[in-house]
Amino acid sequence: MGEDGIFANKTIAIVGLGLMGGSLALALRLHVGALLAVDPDPETRRYALERRLVNKASADPAKILPQADLIVLAAPVRVNLQLLAQLPLLCPASSAVIDLSSTKAEIVAAMNRLPERFSALGGHPMCGKETSGLPHAEAKLFKNATFALTPTERTTLTMRETANQLATLIGSRPLWLNAQTHDNWVAATSHLPYLLSAALAASTPTEAAPLASSGFRSATRLAASDVDMMLDILLTNRVPLLTALQNFRLGLTELETTLTATDERTLREQLARARDARKTLFPD
Amino acid sequence: MGEDGIFANKTIAIVGLGLMGGSLALALRLHVGALLAVDPDPETRRYALERRLVNKASADPAKILPQADLIVLAAPVRVNLQLLAQLPLLCPASSAVIDLSSTKAEIVAAMNRLPERFSALGGHPMCGKETSGLPHAEAKLFKNATFALTPTERTTLTMRETANQLATLIGSRPLWLNAQTHDNWVAATSHLPYLLSAALAASTPTEAAPLASSGFRSATRLAASDVDMMLDILLTNRVPLLTALQNFRLGLTELETTLTATDERTLREQLARARDARKTLFPD
Repeated sequence: MGEDGIFANKTIAIVGLGLMGGSLALALRLHVGALLAVDPDPETRRYALERRLVNKASADPAKILPQADLIVLAAPVRVNLQLLAQLPLLCPASSAVIDLSSTKAEIVAAMNRLPERFSALGGHPMCGKETSGLPHAEAKLFKNATFALTPTERTTLTMRETANQLATLIGSRPLWLNAQTHDNWVAATSHLPYLLSAALAASTPTEAAPLASSGFRSATRLAASDVDMMLDILLTNRVPLLTALQNFRLGLTELETTLTATDERTLREQLARARDARKTLFPD
Repeated sequence: MGEDGIFANKTIAIVGLGLMGGSLALALRLHVGALLAVDPDPETRRYALERRLVNKASADPAKILPQADLIVLAAPVRVNLQLLAQLPLLCPASSAVIDLSSTKAEIVAAMNRLPERFSALGGHPMCGKETSGLPHAEAKLFKNATFALTPTERTTLTMRETANQLATLIGSRPLWLNAQTHDNWVAATSHLPYLLSAALAASTPTEAAPLASSGFRSATRLAASDVDMMLDILLTNRVPLLTALQNFRLGLTELETTLTATDERTLREQLARARDARKTLFPD
């Protein structure tokens, strides 16, 4: 394991063994000194211990976190925010912490409030599946994914290096950016599409089902996402999402106005622009 | 070929050898007496004749249509509408005609204007691919697809039977419904999702591309559709589409209002309703 470098003798604690935390455990287990886990669900802890995903698991963060060289917060966003507030009490010594939450500005603000003995960095691996929970976890989840990394006032140079190594070790590509930029971009590319998908699914007459095509299936796929997870995300990214929604509405109103006026020439230009924009975003 | 029944000695003319018309030719060629084609593109006609997809092809409908027992209009919607207006001059004798257009109310209205010697029926096989043109045609395109059939004032009992046999022969499931109902339903399940996808693709900042996920890819897939084809569809289904858009806007505004107010309980209920609606539409 010598070539695994900086993690070979380290103890890493993962808080939350869901799809993300569990997949991280699978991706890291052969490359670290010890893996510890915090999870409130006894069944999840038993599953993880029986399969030797982690060396130790507990429901109580106080029993796990002080032993870790690196703490990875992989719980839902708002649970991670609560944990960050408790961290100064839970960890009396210096400690390094990174999170995997889908929204970053509130996380980074909470990290900035940590005492100076903490080294802290916001993280968001841009991957996922339509299933959730530890049984669906897989080491390859992070392969070729972008791993967004958002620095805080508590991000040391060592922490930057640790995060780059961690991201690379699990097969992802680190992308450093400002937390607010991250949140604005995922509002436009992830949270807004979810909201549209939900509004579309809810507004479709159920009797139209026999005529629902594969295009409709794609367009409403995100509406099937886990509600609690999305609620956490939407509520911690409200302002960027509402801004993205305003921009979208302007574009939709332009199309509606042209269609109402039966202005074929303008409509053709608008649709061609949208097609070209899509091709720019996904060139294949 | 005796078991193929009513088409074994019939001559069928397909107008427009694109993806739909070409796939129909492939699905029918071994089951009919003769296949004729009308297409304005010399390259397409040569391609079809060289591969023996059809027995005869011409750019001139007057040279083909009078010989057919059944005429299938497989050109873009508005070309089909023009052809229907010319049909009384093109076909002096009695004739049977069906179309494959994506919108039905204007087609059915044009069919209702045909002289009584015509037997006519609106049709819409609910299938497609992201590619277009004869080289992408395939016999199995219609397999397990819903074939919407919308009666007109010119639909005889014989025409109903012919359409049921045709739909079944190519592997699709006939679904009889009113043209206006068809158009309202596809406005909600097909044309509105396209419009949202286009507005979303156009309103997304291109610099956000590194954070665009698979969910964003799904949500914007329809924006890549052929612009001319979609223009034809939107402009012949304007009113139902604008109505579906109004319904969608109401649902979106509800979500926006709740999010703006940070009303977590209502937001959870709204998102759960949307998720359940999606599961009702696609139970798997």
